[in-house]
Amino acid sequence: MSDFLTIPRQDHDDLVIAAYMHRGYKADEAAEGARLAAEAARHGIRTHHALKALHLDHLFGSATGGCVPGAEIEVLPGRFAASEAWNANKKLGQSVAYRAIDRAIELADQYGIAQISIDNAFHYLWGGGYVMAAAERGYIAYTNCTSTLAEVVPFGGKFPTLGTNPHSWGFPTMDASGFPLVIDWATSTVAMGRVQALKREGKQLPPGSAVDRDGNPTTDPHQVASLLPFGAHKGYGLSLINELMGALIGGSLPTHRGRPVPKEGEKSTSAFYFQIIHPDALSGRDFAEARTQMQNLTAVIHDILGHGNDKAMLPGQLEANARKESDACGGLLFTAAEVEEFNELNRELQRPEWKV
Amino acid sequence: MSDFLTIPRQDHDDLVIAAYMHRGYKADEAAEGARLAAEAARHGIRTHHALKALHLDHLFGSATGGCVPGAEIEVLPGRFAASEAWNANKKLGQSVAYRAIDRAIELADQYGIAQISIDNAFHYLWGGGYVMAAAERGYIAYTNCTSTLAEVVPFGGKFPTLGTNPHSWGFPTMDASGFPLVIDWATSTVAMGRVQALKREGKQLPPGSAVDRDGNPTTDPHQVASLLPFGAHKGYGLSLINELMGALIGGSLPTHRGRPVPKEGEKSTSAFYFQIIHPDALSGRDFAEARTQMQNLTAVIHDILGHGNDKAMLPGQLEANARKESDACGGLLFTAAEVEEFNELNRELQRPEWKV
Repeated sequence: MSDFLTIPRQDHDDLVIAAYMHRGYKADEAAEGARLAAEAARHGIRTHHALKALHLDHLFGSATGGCVPGAEIEVLPGRFAASEAWNANKKLGQSVAYRAIDRAIELADQYGIAQISIDNAFHYLWGGGYVMAAAERGYIAYTNCTSTLAEVVPFGGKFPTLGTNPHSWGFPTMDASGFPLVIDWATSTVAMGRVQALKREGKQLPPGSAVDRDGNPTTDPHQVASLLPFGAHKGYGLSLINELMGALIGGSLPTHRGRPVPKEGEKSTSAFYFQIIHPDALSGRDFAEARTQMQNLTAVIHDILGHGNDKAMLPGQLEANARKESDACGGLLFTAAEVEEFNELNRELQRPEWKV
Repeated sequence: MSDFLTIPRQDHDDLVIAAYMHRGYKADEAAEGARLAAEAARHGIRTHHALKALHLDHLFGSATGGCVPGAEIEVLPGRFAASEAWNANKKLGQSVAYRAIDRAIELADQYGIAQISIDNAFHYLWGGGYVMAAAERGYIAYTNCTSTLAEVVPFGGKFPTLGTNPHSWGFPTMDASGFPLVIDWATSTVAMGRVQALKREGKQLPPGSAVDRDGNPTTDPHQVASLLPFGAHKGYGLSLINELMGALIGGSLPTHRGRPVPKEGEKSTSAFYFQIIHPDALSGRDFAEARTQMQNLTAVIHDILGHGNDKAMLPGQLEANARKESDACGGLLFTAAEVEEFNELNRELQRPEWKV
C-alpha cells in the first residue's frame, strides 16, 4: 500500500508503552495496551489503534478518573464453577480483557463453556482483537460491552439512551480459510466518527442511520444528533442485550455512562462480558463422510461460499488481508499523518522521532 | 379482537395431542408439541402455531422420515461438566427443546452457565417460546438452530446456501416490564412465507430483502428466488453463527438440509444450540443506589425507555399483549379460516368439531 509507511512493531510498542507509563500505568498494563494497539493496526482496524486508544484514555480515562492506572482486578468469591465475576476497579480495559480471555479459556477447558462478567470497567477498544486471539488458540469466543456514551436511539424512540454497544464473535476456522472468522461490529448503523468524516467530505449518511435533534430521520451529517440501531428492531434488540447484561453485572443508567461526574449515587462505568466455548464440548461425534469436527466445519464453509458465491467473503477476511500485508511489510502500516501524530508523541516524551 | 374466535386451551390441546398421536408420536411428545403450539397461539405467533407445526411435520417430518416418533434422546458421555451434547435421533423438536432448557437450567444452577448442543434434530418451530419459558423462571436463555432449508444468499453472493437461521434470547425482566424480554427473529430480512403473502396481495418487498434467479436484488415477489440477510454484512454474520455452530455440532452441508434424500453420505438434519445463564453468576454486587440486581435491571430499562422514548417498545411486548388478550378471552384466538382447518383435522380424526 503505497499510501502507508511501515513502522517496525518494536518501535511502535516502545512508544506506546512509554506513553502509557508516562500516564502512570504499570509495565504490564502498558504492554497489554501496546499489544492490542499493535494487533489493531496490524489487522487494519484504523479506528482502534494506539492514537485512538491514547486519545480515549485522555478524554475519559486516566486524565479524568474513568480509568485508574495500576488498579487491581478483584475476583469476587462465587458459587458457580464455570463463571467468574470481576470488579475491574477501572483498570485499563485492554489488560482486563486479555486476562478475562485467558481465564475463561482455562475454565472452558474444564467445563466446556465459561463466562467472565466484569463490573467497573473502562473501554477495551477492539472486541474483535480478543475473540480473534481466542479463536487462534482453537476456541469459540464472544464478548460484548456497554459503550462509554449513550449515542443511539431505541427503535421507535427519539432520545439516545443506548451505547453503540458492539458484539464480537470469533470462531476457529483456520483450517477452512487460513484465518479465524471474526464477526465484530457495533449495533449502530454507522459510528459517530463516520458521521464526522462524512461531514468533512460533504457526503450524506445512508438512510435509516441517524436522527436529528427532534428524533426525525436525517441523512445530513450536519443535522445528526444521534444514531439509529442497524436493522431496525433487530439491531435494537442486539443493542439491548449489552444494556441488559451490563445492568445485571453492575452498570448503572446508560445515560450516565462516561460522564466525568455522574449524578450523585449513580455509576458511570462500563461493563464487559466474555464467554468461551470449547469446540469439543459441542461435538455430537457424528459427522458425515467420517469427517473430523474441523473437516466438517471446513466442508460447511466451502458449501456456503460455493455454488457461484465466490464474491461473498467470510467476516475476518479483510482483517486477515491487512495482517498479511502488514507482515509482508515487516511492521505496522500508518499514514503519513498518523506517523506525524506518533512523532508528536515521541517529542512530548522526549524520545527520538520515527524516521520513515 | 372481533376477527378472532376463542377456543378453550383444553380443546386445542386435546386435538393437537390426538393429531400427533395419530401420526405415531408418544403421549409425552404429543403433549410437548401441543404445549409449544398453544403457547405460540397464546402469544400471537401466528406463523408457528399448531397448523404450521403439523404441516411442517407432514412435509419434512414423520411422513418423510425427517422426524421419528418415539425416538429416544441419547446424551453423549463427555468430559465437560457444564455442557452436554445430545443426539436427538430426529425426535420431535419441541420435545427435545423443552427438555434441553430444563437440563441446561439444572446445569446453570450449578455452574452459572451451561450449554446443550443437539445433533440430528428436527425443527423446533418457535425458539422464542423456549427462551421465554426459561426467562419466566428467572434465567437468561439463548438458542439458535439451523433452519431446514437453505433459502438465504450470503452477503455479496448470489446462490442460497444459508438457512433463515433464527436467534432467540430471553431475559428475566418481569420486575421491570411485567413480562420477559424476548428477542427472537430470523436473520433473513423477511420470511419466504411473507414473500408469498405479498405476492397474493400484489405488493412489493422492502428493498434489500431478496434476489432473483440471477442473484440480482428485486422487490417484486414474483421474481424472488432467494432471500437476503437483514442488515447486510451484520445479519450475514449472525446467520453464519448458526451454520458454524451447526457444523461443529454435527450438521452437514447447508444445501443438503431438509432434503428427503440427501446426497449419499451427507446428513440432512438440523442442529440446535441452547445456553442458560444464571443471573446471580453475572452479578458484581456493586449496584448504584443500593439497588438489588433486578432493581438495577429495572432502573436501566426505565432509563432506556424514558427521556421521551415512550413510543419505543421492548422486544416481547407484542407477545405479552397477545397473551393478555388470549387470557382475558379465556382461551386461544384463531381466525374463522384457522378454526375451519382445525375442524377438518377434527373430522379426519373422527372427533367432534369445535363449535364457536
